[in-house]
Amino acid sequence: MMFIFMLQTFQVMSQETRQSVFTTIHQRKSVRQYQDKPVPKEKTDTLLRAAMAAPTARNIQPWLFYVITSRKILDQLAEELPYAKMLAQAPMAIVVAGDTKKGNPNEEQIHNWTLDCAAATQNLLLAAEALGLGAVWTGVYPYKERIAAVSKALGLPGHIIPLNIIPIGYPLLDDRPKDKWDPEKVKWVE
Amino acid sequence: MMFIFMLQTFQVMSQETRQSVFTTIHQRKSVRQYQDKPVPKEKTDTLLRAAMAAPTARNIQPWLFYVITSRKILDQLAEELPYAKMLAQAPMAIVVAGDTKKGNPNEEQIHNWTLDCAAATQNLLLAAEALGLGAVWTGVYPYKERIAAVSKALGLPGHIIPLNIIPIGYPLLDDRPKDKWDPEKVKWVE
Repeated sequence: MMFIFMLQTFQVMSQETRQSVFTTIHQRKSVRQYQDKPVPKEKTDTLLRAAMAAPTARNIQPWLFYVITSRKILDQLAEELPYAKMLAQAPMAIVVAGDTKKGNPNEEQIHNWTLDCAAATQNLLLAAEALGLGAVWTGVYPYKERIAAVSKALGLPGHIIPLNIIPIGYPLLDDRPKDKWDPEKVKWVE
Repeated sequence: MMFIFMLQTFQVMSQETRQSVFTTIHQRKSVRQYQDKPVPKEKTDTLLRAAMAAPTARNIQPWLFYVITSRKILDQLAEELPYAKMLAQAPMAIVVAGDTKKGNPNEEQIHNWTLDCAAATQNLLLAAEALGLGAVWTGVYPYKERIAAVSKALGLPGHIIPLNIIPIGYPLLDDRPKDKWDPEKVKWVE
């Protein structure tokens, strides 16, 4: 009896675990308007821990995370970045950047850090969704002017390159995810 | 009374939802050895649906997914790709590729498809973990020889570029995730 109960509990939990990660993946959406309310430190930590759980090529972990809560810098970047105006309303933003001196990149490998940082960003966006936060990936790399603006604002040395800037806050509106499923994007090689 | 019960249920579910997506994120690991057992079609569908829920720059969705179950092609690519030898044991692999004709890329934007496909790959890897499957991201782009080998095996036209190839199967061993948390990678800009 106890055994059957435990088995059922396990099955329910197992289903729940599956459902919930897929719920998060499919509920994630770009959130561009935020409440005037700070993101608690423990939630920020949870976001960063999720980000650093992503895989990286040859386990180099070339990433750095700049957590910006300075109102002055958020407002300055809102002015300078054409596609990140929502920084002016956001209580926080995280810049995911790559340390291009990590590993020993040759010409071919020079872009690997961007893929590692992209995977970390996706983890971070899923974590934000799961915590009831809203976030949006706004691109910095490979746009020269945007890289220059963020690098100057954060005082980055030349070998640290910002991939993106992610405004984060509590959602103001009830944003809905896009349905992007398209079976024609799948090719079966049998 | 009923209200309190519902509230408690909601809180428990809410905690469970949070825990489980984070469990998946932190339990995900690179799995390189697989059982001799095919991946069911409905699990493959679930992987692909998760992948296509990732965000893309300007919502261009430049991705294509090649699902390879052909033993001949898996074995051929295991021989030709230096870091994907495990394809010889895998029952399946998915190539995430970018359609570089999507959007209207100028020289600066030409790499955006790689970031979109990287985010989709991370969703796919998390979905595999949640379904009890094992997978590993093996890089194809930007290595010219690897791109040539995969493109030839799949008959890809020049504007479709493979980003990676992901062998997928039921794990043979009890692989464990790496702990990559490093607080020194976080910079606070307050």
